[in-house]
Amino acid sequence: MSGQPTFAVAGGFLGAAGGTGKTGIAIAGIPFDIATTNRPGARFGPEAIRRASKMLVDGDHPTLRRDLTKGLTDAGDFAIALGDVPASLALIEQQAAQFAHLVTLGGDHSIALPLLRALRKRLGGPLGLVHFDAHVDTWPDSFGQPYGHGSCFYHAINEGLVDPRRMIQIGIRSPVQTDVLDWTLSQGVTIVSAQDVHERGIEAVAAQIRQTVGEAPSYLSFDIDALDPAFAPGTGTPEIGGLATWQAQALLRRLGGLNFAGMDMVEVAPAYDHAELTALAAATLVYEYLALRT
Amino acid sequence: MSGQPTFAVAGGFLGAAGGTGKTGIAIAGIPFDIATTNRPGARFGPEAIRRASKMLVDGDHPTLRRDLTKGLTDAGDFAIALGDVPASLALIEQQAAQFAHLVTLGGDHSIALPLLRALRKRLGGPLGLVHFDAHVDTWPDSFGQPYGHGSCFYHAINEGLVDPRRMIQIGIRSPVQTDVLDWTLSQGVTIVSAQDVHERGIEAVAAQIRQTVGEAPSYLSFDIDALDPAFAPGTGTPEIGGLATWQAQALLRRLGGLNFAGMDMVEVAPAYDHAELTALAAATLVYEYLALRT
Amino acid sequence: MSGQPTFAVAGGFLGAAGGTGKTGIAIAGIPFDIATTNRPGARFGPEAIRRASKMLVDGDHPTLRRDLTKGLTDAGDFAIALGDVPASLALIEQQAAQFAHLVTLGGDHSIALPLLRALRKRLGGPLGLVHFDAHVDTWPDSFGQPYGHGSCFYHAINEGLVDPRRMIQIGIRSPVQTDVLDWTLSQGVTIVSAQDVHERGIEAVAAQIRQTVGEAPSYLSFDIDALDPAFAPGTGTPEIGGLATWQAQALLRRLGGLNFAGMDMVEVAPAYDHAELTALAAATLVYEYLALRT
Amino acid sequence: MSGQPTFAVAGGFLGAAGGTGKTGIAIAGIPFDIATTNRPGARFGPEAIRRASKMLVDGDHPTLRRDLTKGLTDAGDFAIALGDVPASLALIEQQAAQFAHLVTLGGDHSIALPLLRALRKRLGGPLGLVHFDAHVDTWPDSFGQPYGHGSCFYHAINEGLVDPRRMIQIGIRSPVQTDVLDWTLSQGVTIVSAQDVHERGIEAVAAQIRQTVGEAPSYLSFDIDALDPAFAPGTGTPEIGGLATWQAQALLRRLGGLNFAGMDMVEVAPAYDHAELTALAAATLVYEYLALRT
Amino acid sequence: MSGQPTFAVAGGFLGAAGGTGKTGIAIAGIPFDIATTNRPGARFGPEAIRRASKMLVDGDHPTLRRDLTKGLTDAGDFAIALGDVPASLALIEQQAAQFAHLVTLGGDHSIALPLLRALRKRLGGPLGLVHFDAHVDTWPDSFGQPYGHGSCFYHAINEGLVDPRRMIQIGIRSPVQTDVLDWTLSQGVTIVSAQDVHERGIEAVAAQIRQTVGEAPSYLSFDIDALDPAFAPGTGTPEIGGLATWQAQALLRRLGGLNFAGMDMVEVAPAYDHAELTALAAATLVYEYLALRT
Amino acid sequence: MSGQPTFAVAGGFLGAAGGTGKTGIAIAGIPFDIATTNRPGARFGPEAIRRASKMLVDGDHPTLRRDLTKGLTDAGDFAIALGDVPASLALIEQQAAQFAHLVTLGGDHSIALPLLRALRKRLGGPLGLVHFDAHVDTWPDSFGQPYGHGSCFYHAINEGLVDPRRMIQIGIRSPVQTDVLDWTLSQGVTIVSAQDVHERGIEAVAAQIRQTVGEAPSYLSFDIDALDPAFAPGTGTPEIGGLATWQAQALLRRLGGLNFAGMDMVEVAPAYDHAELTALAAATLVYEYLALRT
Repeated sequence: MSGQPTFAVAGGFLGAAGGTGKTGIAIAGIPFDIATTNRPGARFGPEAIRRASKMLVDGDHPTLRRDLTKGLTDAGDFAIALGDVPASLALIEQQAAQFAHLVTLGGDHSIALPLLRALRKRLGGPLGLVHFDAHVDTWPDSFGQPYGHGSCFYHAINEGLVDPRRMIQIGIRSPVQTDVLDWTLSQGVTIVSAQDVHERGIEAVAAQIRQTVGEAPSYLSFDIDALDPAFAPGTGTPEIGGLATWQAQALLRRLGGLNFAGMDMVEVAPAYDHAELTALAAATLVYEYLALRT
Repeated sequence: MSGQPTFAVAGGFLGAAGGTGKTGIAIAGIPFDIATTNRPGARFGPEAIRRASKMLVDGDHPTLRRDLTKGLTDAGDFAIALGDVPASLALIEQQAAQFAHLVTLGGDHSIALPLLRALRKRLGGPLGLVHFDAHVDTWPDSFGQPYGHGSCFYHAINEGLVDPRRMIQIGIRSPVQTDVLDWTLSQGVTIVSAQDVHERGIEAVAAQIRQTVGEAPSYLSFDIDALDPAFAPGTGTPEIGGLATWQAQALLRRLGGLNFAGMDMVEVAPAYDHAELTALAAATLVYEYLALRT
Repeated sequence: MSGQPTFAVAGGFLGAAGGTGKTGIAIAGIPFDIATTNRPGARFGPEAIRRASKMLVDGDHPTLRRDLTKGLTDAGDFAIALGDVPASLALIEQQAAQFAHLVTLGGDHSIALPLLRALRKRLGGPLGLVHFDAHVDTWPDSFGQPYGHGSCFYHAINEGLVDPRRMIQIGIRSPVQTDVLDWTLSQGVTIVSAQDVHERGIEAVAAQIRQTVGEAPSYLSFDIDALDPAFAPGTGTPEIGGLATWQAQALLRRLGGLNFAGMDMVEVAPAYDHAELTALAAATLVYEYLALRT
Repeated sequence: MSGQPTFAVAGGFLGAAGGTGKTGIAIAGIPFDIATTNRPGARFGPEAIRRASKMLVDGDHPTLRRDLTKGLTDAGDFAIALGDVPASLALIEQQAAQFAHLVTLGGDHSIALPLLRALRKRLGGPLGLVHFDAHVDTWPDSFGQPYGHGSCFYHAINEGLVDPRRMIQIGIRSPVQTDVLDWTLSQGVTIVSAQDVHERGIEAVAAQIRQTVGEAPSYLSFDIDALDPAFAPGTGTPEIGGLATWQAQALLRRLGGLNFAGMDMVEVAPAYDHAELTALAAATLVYEYLALRT
Repeated sequence: MSGQPTFAVAGGFLGAAGGTGKTGIAIAGIPFDIATTNRPGARFGPEAIRRASKMLVDGDHPTLRRDLTKGLTDAGDFAIALGDVPASLALIEQQAAQFAHLVTLGGDHSIALPLLRALRKRLGGPLGLVHFDAHVDTWPDSFGQPYGHGSCFYHAINEGLVDPRRMIQIGIRSPVQTDVLDWTLSQGVTIVSAQDVHERGIEAVAAQIRQTVGEAPSYLSFDIDALDPAFAPGTGTPEIGGLATWQAQALLRRLGGLNFAGMDMVEVAPAYDHAELTALAAATLVYEYLALRT
Repeated sequence: MSGQPTFAVAGGFLGAAGGTGKTGIAIAGIPFDIATTNRPGARFGPEAIRRASKMLVDGDHPTLRRDLTKGLTDAGDFAIALGDVPASLALIEQQAAQFAHLVTLGGDHSIALPLLRALRKRLGGPLGLVHFDAHVDTWPDSFGQPYGHGSCFYHAINEGLVDPRRMIQIGIRSPVQTDVLDWTLSQGVTIVSAQDVHERGIEAVAAQIRQTVGEAPSYLSFDIDALDPAFAPGTGTPEIGGLATWQAQALLRRLGGLNFAGMDMVEVAPAYDHAELTALAAATLVYEYLALRT
């Protein structure tokens, strides 16, 4: 066996043509999912999200009133080292370094670590982080594995890739060891639970995000399980009580003017999806990010 | 509980017996879906909605406290010209003209045009329109096809079937060409986005509907994709961020006293449904319409 | 994260070991579903809920900050008389009598009756009842069957197992014969419709529950169809317009200090579930109950 | 092709009109499934089989070259006593007694017993039996229940409804207690395992069926789990290694001239079906039976 | 709306690069399905077949021992006139005329007609035809529509596109009007039913195909419903009793040396597929065709 | 029928109690799947196979006429090093070494390597191998990974764990690089393609297996994709044209008297299964193995 694994063949997000990504915003898929701790299958995320994105091609963004497909490129899928976590993370960092402004389609959340490493190098300092998720992802290990999908931000904080005082997590609600939670808070991270979003409302949470992150360069990391499993069944570690898609859209649309340097959309596992619900949610939320940047 | 259990109820919608529809309210199916632009399959909508409606047979409407199955008839499915859009629209108009008060189960949204043509003739003037949808459906064409499911209200406005100043669209959120949107607004149509419903609330939107439509004869056209795909996955052109079923119910229940002359429930595509979720939503929303009329 | 990954956790609910249930809180499954009136299949509920609960094993409850898996036992499934409703109800009552504090995984809602009979005997007086459901379940019969899943609380009231003035139903929204509804209200039962929850909000409804039930011993009966079918498709008699999982969680978390003597989680029918959505919702809501009791 | 397309055909099985069944062949559904021992849901079998049968309406039988929809009537569904096995069996026998030649759509296999009781009374003597199944269905009890779906032929033999020497079972392959198997053989029943069909071939088995049953009045009881689960996933107690649909068709087509007095098609559980595979198989095999009788 | 409909975006069969198809073998998708008479959805066939074909990329054909991905091109999807059957057929013919050797992925079977028209013009005489299908597809009309998916070969014979004496149909088994069947036979067409394949065996049928078609230029038209629905559930008009995939492969592998001028693979409707079963079958059978031609 | 109904059977595989496996036959699950090259998810195989096995508990094996549940133990799931292939293989070997006679439920096929390493050590010499699979699994690497699921027997041969002249592969049919195929044959391995099984028949192939493997200690490795995807959709790398379940059963039942020292059942990926088809096939084939050993 040689070349790309069978599940990694190209096609363009929003119909975008290929490109090197040296300028402008580029999409890339990262079909990597062996750092998951429960249901796998996010390796098929890039293909599913690209396919679902085709439904958004015809027309302008409804509130921005602009065609978001113009000028976008899709660099295809990153090479990974099949079956080898550390080697894959190294490969991802190396490839990410080539891009001017990268939006990735995962893949599991472990990919955020090498993506942030590459950005940190390019920008010369730690980033702010807007992190949508059901889980804090600051576990020091993942059932003995250092770089599992629940540990990416433990390392990102420890490696100085993100500034925890400019880091906000939205949608958090899973069981979590109390010492992990306390460590995260002690670093200065702001945690907004899903119940907070439901009860405090969109305006208050959006203001808190803007205030926490500020105007310095930031990164958007969106784990699709921030959404409730009713809206995103196709994921590996679902938790009930999550966000509706309208809430995620409403929050993102209020983040205009923030200085985002990149985004990832992770943990879409199509084998558990139905009627492309999850893939369409992921594609549309990336589309909302593009609306912020165009 | 009495009679046959719900899984063994015979007859049409809500167990209704057949009839000519010359008097009273009659249900009819229109298994027509070749004017769709994405996922087809709404031809199976009438069958699925009728079946799901059986779950509603046992008991009275919970707030109206009346049995809605009394006096209702189900005329079966309309004949269509399989594979021929213009001939089918003509057939639909012709058959619809026979009914005193028709509630149709689609089928794709293109059927609204001949239904409105028939009503316009009967009533002698343009109708008000309460239009639930994710899409404006005022495209001047449909990938080159004049009568696609996204163009029905472009024609309805141009043909004077509806009065655009008495027309309100609720749930709108899809990408749309800016010139299509601007044309629609310039005709006087009121557009309430799904985000508006989420953020402004039920009372405000219900009041706006009542005010826009007024007391003259109106029509209710309900595209099931007004609902969020979490609540209605079984449809052809889903868009995230849509209405919850409770919101649609809450709005409909506040429309009592409006002068509705007919209704359609369209775009239920059962092949993409799960556990009859979408068909049950469609059946129940028709049931709420009947509660307004009984 | 430590121990076995969630997909390889052994044991019962939340990985609990077996036990007699003579002390502490014990889980038991009741795979009984022949008293259903529409879609059957809740006999597979206990297995599905236990399996989904494994996803909750790794970590403490996020707001309670305590490990709920400690000290819990799982007594396995109750014996039933396959195909015989009265004999099964007798067997269930007999087995339930052995437990100090029983949390059952149904099965259909008819099991609540013998569970309440056993509790009534143990406690010597009628219980308060917090009842989540789409249906009032106070029909005097079930298509001719005295002990169907829609009649359990008719009997519970008539037999003096619950005190109807300390009984509150949340999420009600199905069609219902007006005389059944009126009988229920005339007994003193408080009914909170799903629309009430949506429009009046969590705080108001939680206060009403606390006030209605008071501090005397109570029981929690949770029919999963209280949730909207988007959040819980895997059930037998779904009704649109129901609760979101976050609402159910938010309500339960406000019931701390009530004097619950037991709980059932019923009507999970896995054959209609998708991606374990419904089973996970059921497992997590039982988990929230445990958080109230630990 | 003429008339309504298959997806819009009205009426009962094969589009048949209603009727009393006093003359000719009549279809009836029996939505009864509480005597199942594993997956329930066959109560939805009649509805699913009727719907799938619509695909067979357009054209003549391909080898018989005759239109099988002529003269057929569909009497709708039998009333049952929901939740009560003995009362339901009594009701079924009573209703079946009204029919000249009845073909029933189950429902679980327990319905065969009252159907045979009714036929035995009408004909005045025991019947021959062609029985397709994965299971012998001669268990003396069903987990303590006397009339479960695995015991129908134990009673049929003991009550003298069928002549075991004129009884042949085809497709048998499930685990079975050796004493149950030996009792069955000792009564004179002929058992043809699924492996026998695969290895001995159609001609040999068809000849054995004809020889065993002879020319006296007989009954055809077809449990859909005689088919392999690849061909009929939608059933309650699947067993691998079963018949392909072509084998069942090939066998049935060789039974012309036998004197069949009735048929049942049982154990179709649509909740486990996919793409209507199982329902279509059931409908087509009933269609093949009609081809033998028309 | 303009440009290609959303469901028609490119990607390469077996990973093939794009190309004009002026030389060599080229793949093209034809996402056209409005001439179907039952379940629609074959418009998504090209996308699904291409995706499933990726599983076949790694390695040589197991018996031919050659890499079939070399030199193949994929021209993407044909333009169609959405919603207009005659205009679409004209467009398909026009585009097909540009190719040296075209293998198309449908789409419904109506596309075979314009494809044969284009080939007939190129070759100057009628073609032989190897036609796998459950249906004869020689109906003179399709519920009133002249060019439905069940009429393509009626026209192909009448227009002299194929030589009916060099035409063989394999897998036939649906109900069919006797006059349609007789007309087909009277034209000289050879019909091999699915039961014939099961009972006469591969060698005999393969020999009959070779003998009927001979060495002059021929065409292979493969309707996926020639396969049994257990092997190909994802199609619009399934019929039980069909071919296993191994039988189709075994037959195709014995057709080496025939002079095929083109192929179509039609009627894959992914909405009814499961685990990509049908799409993989379609992709692999196209792969077997390529093995005959390389 | 006695005891708990099949849907409420407690315990492990076939309801077996736990045990150390020091004597007798023991079942163990190995929830490891990160060495897959296409669809992942076999980590859920052990759970699914155990659950499906409950359907086989009630009764004796139909031809062996013995109760196979007696004396069997289930040791639960092996610990693995989540996310680390080499460390997991080492852990598996270490745990396997503790068992007298181990039957494992995978997991992907890479687990066969450490299982054979442990057996080789115990037995002191290379084993014979009966290997059911669609793929030869003798690739020297797996997209760069040395121990992927397609390379297990390359290493097993090179490490002298199996004797390639006593090794037979049944069901082979995937594309494969010609040099990989030639290397395999050159080692002396016997390859029986799926087409061979279909065309040469059960008796001939069973004889060839017996003759190839002989009477010395052997191992049975069963990749569920040896079965056709119609019979086993729930797997990662399906290939059409495979074995029917009856063929696999018929072959296994003819292997009595062979000296099997262990078995694995691998590559069941429940996320792609339907109605437990694949899990039931896997469970039943393990059951057939137990019938050979009891």
